[in-house]
Amino acid sequence: MEKSAIIHNMNESYAYKIGEHQYLIRLRTKKDDFNQVTLKYVEKYLRERRVKDHPTFSIEMRKVASTSIYDYYEAIISDEMDFFGRNFSMIAARYYFVLDDGASKVYYGNYKFFEKEPYESIEMFNLVFHQADRSFFKTPEWSKGAIIYQIFPERFAPTDNNFSSTWNEVPMGVRTRTNGTLRGIIQKIDYIKDLGVDAIYLNPIFKSNSSHRYDTIDYMAIDPLLGTDEDFRELVDTCHNNDIKVILDLVFNHSSTQFFAFQDLLKNQEKSKYVDWYFVSSFPVAINFPPNYKGFSFGPYMPKLNTENPDCREYFLDVTKHYLRDFNVDGYRLDVADEVTHDFWRVFRKESKKYNANCLIMGEVWYESTPYLRGDEFDSIMNYTIYDGIRNFLKGNLSLDQFIDIIERERGETPLTYYHNSNILIGSHDTDRIYTFLDNDKNKFLQAVSLLLFLPGSPLIYYGDEIMMEGSYDPDCRRGMIFDKHNEDILNYVKKLIKIKHLPVVKYGDIHVEKINSSGLKITRFIDENQINMIINFNNEIYLDELKGKFDLINEKELNGIVKENQIIIYK
Amino acid sequence: MEKSAIIHNMNESYAYKIGEHQYLIRLRTKKDDFNQVTLKYVEKYLRERRVKDHPTFSIEMRKVASTSIYDYYEAIISDEMDFFGRNFSMIAARYYFVLDDGASKVYYGNYKFFEKEPYESIEMFNLVFHQADRSFFKTPEWSKGAIIYQIFPERFAPTDNNFSSTWNEVPMGVRTRTNGTLRGIIQKIDYIKDLGVDAIYLNPIFKSNSSHRYDTIDYMAIDPLLGTDEDFRELVDTCHNNDIKVILDLVFNHSSTQFFAFQDLLKNQEKSKYVDWYFVSSFPVAINFPPNYKGFSFGPYMPKLNTENPDCREYFLDVTKHYLRDFNVDGYRLDVADEVTHDFWRVFRKESKKYNANCLIMGEVWYESTPYLRGDEFDSIMNYTIYDGIRNFLKGNLSLDQFIDIIERERGETPLTYYHNSNILIGSHDTDRIYTFLDNDKNKFLQAVSLLLFLPGSPLIYYGDEIMMEGSYDPDCRRGMIFDKHNEDILNYVKKLIKIKHLPVVKYGDIHVEKINSSGLKITRFIDENQINMIINFNNEIYLDELKGKFDLINEKELNGIVKENQIIIYK
Repeated sequence: MEKSAIIHNMNESYAYKIGEHQYLIRLRTKKDDFNQVTLKYVEKYLRERRVKDHPTFSIEMRKVASTSIYDYYEAIISDEMDFFGRNFSMIAARYYFVLDDGASKVYYGNYKFFEKEPYESIEMFNLVFHQADRSFFKTPEWSKGAIIYQIFPERFAPTDNNFSSTWNEVPMGVRTRTNGTLRGIIQKIDYIKDLGVDAIYLNPIFKSNSSHRYDTIDYMAIDPLLGTDEDFRELVDTCHNNDIKVILDLVFNHSSTQFFAFQDLLKNQEKSKYVDWYFVSSFPVAINFPPNYKGFSFGPYMPKLNTENPDCREYFLDVTKHYLRDFNVDGYRLDVADEVTHDFWRVFRKESKKYNANCLIMGEVWYESTPYLRGDEFDSIMNYTIYDGIRNFLKGNLSLDQFIDIIERERGETPLTYYHNSNILIGSHDTDRIYTFLDNDKNKFLQAVSLLLFLPGSPLIYYGDEIMMEGSYDPDCRRGMIFDKHNEDILNYVKKLIKIKHLPVVKYGDIHVEKINSSGLKITRFIDENQINMIINFNNEIYLDELKGKFDLINEKELNGIVKENQIIIYK
Repeated sequence: MEKSAIIHNMNESYAYKIGEHQYLIRLRTKKDDFNQVTLKYVEKYLRERRVKDHPTFSIEMRKVASTSIYDYYEAIISDEMDFFGRNFSMIAARYYFVLDDGASKVYYGNYKFFEKEPYESIEMFNLVFHQADRSFFKTPEWSKGAIIYQIFPERFAPTDNNFSSTWNEVPMGVRTRTNGTLRGIIQKIDYIKDLGVDAIYLNPIFKSNSSHRYDTIDYMAIDPLLGTDEDFRELVDTCHNNDIKVILDLVFNHSSTQFFAFQDLLKNQEKSKYVDWYFVSSFPVAINFPPNYKGFSFGPYMPKLNTENPDCREYFLDVTKHYLRDFNVDGYRLDVADEVTHDFWRVFRKESKKYNANCLIMGEVWYESTPYLRGDEFDSIMNYTIYDGIRNFLKGNLSLDQFIDIIERERGETPLTYYHNSNILIGSHDTDRIYTFLDNDKNKFLQAVSLLLFLPGSPLIYYGDEIMMEGSYDPDCRRGMIFDKHNEDILNYVKKLIKIKHLPVVKYGDIHVEKINSSGLKITRFIDENQINMIINFNNEIYLDELKGKFDLINEKELNGIVKENQIIIYK
């Protein structure tokens, strides 16, 4: 019995509201340390006042995930109880854990261990059911398990199929311009619709001198190279008419040096009324390296914005409002979100939800993201933990056990309030493409997309990955999309996975993971008794008995030969 | 090596800003598991861009606390570095831990363990030095280690020493009224000043029908039994002229049934414009048990307020402003703070600090308080963990080892940003008095006050405890204060402890705790090389060699005989 490994606390991962009257309580222990873990609780005031016959509730906790080091247990408690001859809401629960390793029991409450069953309030944890603060962390319903298609606007489709001769060549850099447009995207709506995705996420579309547009010149203007306000409005409407949401990319960490505020600063120096919109360390401000102002990644071309300045803040909240209210966009992806202040994002969230209560707020946070996911900032983050897991496991840098650890830890530590919103991905405009990363190994590529579309979360599909496009690091990963001569078999396989992802049990069901022999992984998604399983055999050389005799939902007749026989199957 | 016990994460206890350029990083391990723990870090963008010769910083972590189960390690890192031939602020740090148990090393980064030294960013934790969010959790400077004297207003002193004949009898209950007044407190200013405290905290003084006044009838009126607005203004001014701060008690969780809003609700029922200021479950609203509205502790006489209602919120923010702006009070103690919403307290903090940037916001949270101490709600909480430790250890309910565990865990887990603000106490209007709780054992009483005034934190002295008053549970603990015939020796001892508490090293120095034999405790408070020690021998029957030959700061000649020889000494 390893007491030092037992973890429970009152943060958003271990004790939090998950429904109108439900609260989830978690406990982490050392792996395989206990046979049974029980959660016991009482109503705070009934206990403190020693009210006669007040009940003690007892729930056996369920082991929901296991890594090679930890076990995770969960129980759901309700704030409703019957007493005084009626049903009423508890004010607070006092609770503790009974941990039984078969040989002996230990009690854990209020961060202390006891040999005897706790009775005093002070020996128990305390969870207040905030009576006036009923709003738990609410993420948009539509985005749970939603499939989001990421489009790099300039590289998806030109107007009227007017593909340039260099369309699919490797771009030379950020100043290489190609002729993809918003109208081009509108004209490819059937392709997107047919793919079956729930939303598109567009990399920046505002006026900029670079192809990636992460250095914005005018946040209130659609880049003329891409189209007009009317084009964008039509794109949103077209998507909406096809039940597809539209997510824009906002870059509020930094601007272009050509943004009006920075231009004014360059011109008027100390006297500029935009001095405090940036972080200037000395005058005269000039564009040199190293810059005498803060810049993204220490560079001079993307001066860092000070969104704590009230005027600067107001400007960017106006931008936020503009596209939600005047263009009906469905959400935002926030660039370099972890370098902008929490305070700004809290205001941003309130403002955004005012104009569209169901808008999705997706932050770019590559690693530790829990501080942004307490309910008052983002709805989701781009999940680079799963990205790292899938890619490096398939690349051979992580063992199957290490990969399982990542999946299990995500299930164990992630608040369930946004677990299915988490934007899992296997590649983006910021990375080499998955097919290229996996050394153009088709089998591994199929394993990667199968995992992407079967694991819990809201998958991001980077345009072209559905047809196994290749491309190394930026700018190579941003080649023009291929609409003809692409691999139809791969595309059909991905479409099939997308269809399966839309089944409720795969969209937002729980997960159980099991290793089969040394090379197989069985992932079960389930809601109560309802379940769907995926088995992937990662070793081409061996044959898994478990794959026999199952009715495979994915490798139907017309797809035979795409996936090697018995390598990946999905069955009920 | 127990990997399952190793804890680090990005919350306010384990990775947080403690100065303009300093960040504190903590790690918890199983006790005695490692010989050396090293923190290593790099600048995020220099690493990601593989900038040549970018430095890796390395700091040996200091073991700052140890319980019977855990060791706590700390290191402080700066966001400043020299590179590019100049000094600049890092944007973010990537870091990991090197854990050495003498036989082998393990590396811990990004929640994963490695056998080899991490190099990739993805193998490291990530701490963003929010460039535009420089404000760390700032608590008032004056309140760090400040001694706060708690006064139950009606029971401290009547005007002109007009003590009633029953002044020091056990009060019969909440409706027993005694004639203590605000003017009485003003007239005792010399006593309070002479005691040496830094602030007084008054239990509620607003209009109410009960002696405790936790059921407020009018938040904008001083209770006429206690005095007038002018009396209160004079009390604040008198205190300020004597360098004593004044803290008021606010009860925003619930009101009296006679509060105007509830009265309107009773009168106009569904049509009352105050319907949403409370939580009504059915009409007609009537004062019965069980009530058909939410009430404090399920009772009918303190109906719970809905501070999420905008009008209700505005009213209580007006109250908040009123006493800060028009009476210059120095802070608030917030009653039943954990049952009011986080959202309300965040707004409350902003509003309060607007009128007095140095006001103290002290929440009543008996147990888990970290969710309220992230920098945007309270400055401190009433620390019932230390209360529980001191009282139950001296009562014999906890062993010395268990008591040490409590002190050490506080040091290890509490963010240092408010560690010295934590309002430690050994009794209050809500508990039996410490002397009575300890069975009128003078030695144990002296040990309790010595611990209260030597441990880290801002001690609350409940009026009368400085003269060893007795009193069982409420209402007995609220007897009238004794100004004559009280124990001068005890009072002088407490005054001496208060003087020592004002030494910087005791006020806000670090702590080291050591057990001496089986019954002695040595507490060292230190800042760098500067230190002051307290040794308490908890066993009257044995004699500690460690006490010999020390120059005792507290038991000077005139005090000999108060504390049994060699039972408690304080020395440099």
